[in-house]
Amino acid sequence: MASVLILSGGVDSSVLLAHLLAEGRKVRALTVDYGQRHRREIASAQAVAAHHGVEHRVADLRAVAGLMGGNALTDPSVQVPEGHYEAESMKATVVPNRNMLFLALAGSWAVATKSDTVVYGAHGGDHAIYPDCRPAFADAMDRALGLCDWHPVRLERPFVDWDKAAIVRRGAELGAPFHLTWSCYVGGERPCGRCGTCVERREAFAKAGVPDPVRYA
Amino acid sequence: MASVLILSGGVDSSVLLAHLLAEGRKVRALTVDYGQRHRREIASAQAVAAHHGVEHRVADLRAVAGLMGGNALTDPSVQVPEGHYEAESMKATVVPNRNMLFLALAGSWAVATKSDTVVYGAHGGDHAIYPDCRPAFADAMDRALGLCDWHPVRLERPFVDWDKAAIVRRGAELGAPFHLTWSCYVGGERPCGRCGTCVERREAFAKAGVPDPVRYA
Repeated sequence: MASVLILSGGVDSSVLLAHLLAEGRKVRALTVDYGQRHRREIASAQAVAAHHGVEHRVADLRAVAGLMGGNALTDPSVQVPEGHYEAESMKATVVPNRNMLFLALAGSWAVATKSDTVVYGAHGGDHAIYPDCRPAFADAMDRALGLCDWHPVRLERPFVDWDKAAIVRRGAELGAPFHLTWSCYVGGERPCGRCGTCVERREAFAKAGVPDPVRYA
Repeated sequence: MASVLILSGGVDSSVLLAHLLAEGRKVRALTVDYGQRHRREIASAQAVAAHHGVEHRVADLRAVAGLMGGNALTDPSVQVPEGHYEAESMKATVVPNRNMLFLALAGSWAVATKSDTVVYGAHGGDHAIYPDCRPAFADAMDRALGLCDWHPVRLERPFVDWDKAAIVRRGAELGAPFHLTWSCYVGGERPCGRCGTCVERREAFAKAGVPDPVRYA
């Protein structure tokens, strides 16, 4: 089976890549450049894809970032919130309709390459903050991808019922290259350790009992 | 009510713009540049939007056109088929997952501007060739757009049960600027008059009993 994976360069999608390859899949990895201030994750995605030797494309959406309005991930004048991942303030990091755009691009590439599925790493911990990580949204997109072409594509989200600690555990089991991944939303030289995604990552590694090879600022 | 309209610069979406404005809507118009060889339609969309004085954006997706593989609309080495619009050969003009991409971009802009709906001009005559113009696809996308954000967006397709002649008739009634529109897929100085969309357009004007102001090559 051939799949297009949305690879952000973070922990979830990087473990997912190892997970799919362990199942014997042919995987094409797609990373989207939407002008995110944490651009460092694009280089991480490239490194993770190269580590596994899979085909990788970076889709450059910077020219349309202006349609997405002001949010903490693309607009430098909006501050990245610190604190817990599920806090109300994290809503500033919602990029309008980001996942539909990513899934649409992945769907185009899947149809063009006759791949069977599009895969993304939405998991249980995302649901509270990101509407487009919820199962109901993914179900609707699965249906739309199945109807978008004469060649139907299915949408898979193997981690939808997992928490992030379970993903870290699975990554450790598979020898996923955690040292190459990037999670921080702030986008400095080193991860800040204090923004919502850094806090979420550190908690997940601690809970999983896996050492996080990343050095925080 | 505020709406984001996908405006291609062709007859259907141009009549739809006049139709929505006649209903008293606030309309933002979005045109997508995906490297189509009939680039002339982008200038037409600009002219139609300016005619009505509505806000208009051109979303530049040329950087990701490579994901869409070889098709007659973006790849100059693939010939645009001539003949009837519903012929099997028109399948060469399917751009993989094009409408999902367009709807995702429109959805991003709708969420960012707190617009209530996204509108596109899919109509009865498209269904046989373009899977992503079928009602079942649009229903799934309507559901996904309603779930993609805390601000729900609805998808409207007012012409879904109309044929193209009915759209032309409605445009004539509203004084839509047919002289500014562009339909031809070949993309020369003047419309070729022989490709599938030209044939479809000429038949619709003839059936509606409305003179087509466009001069064919």
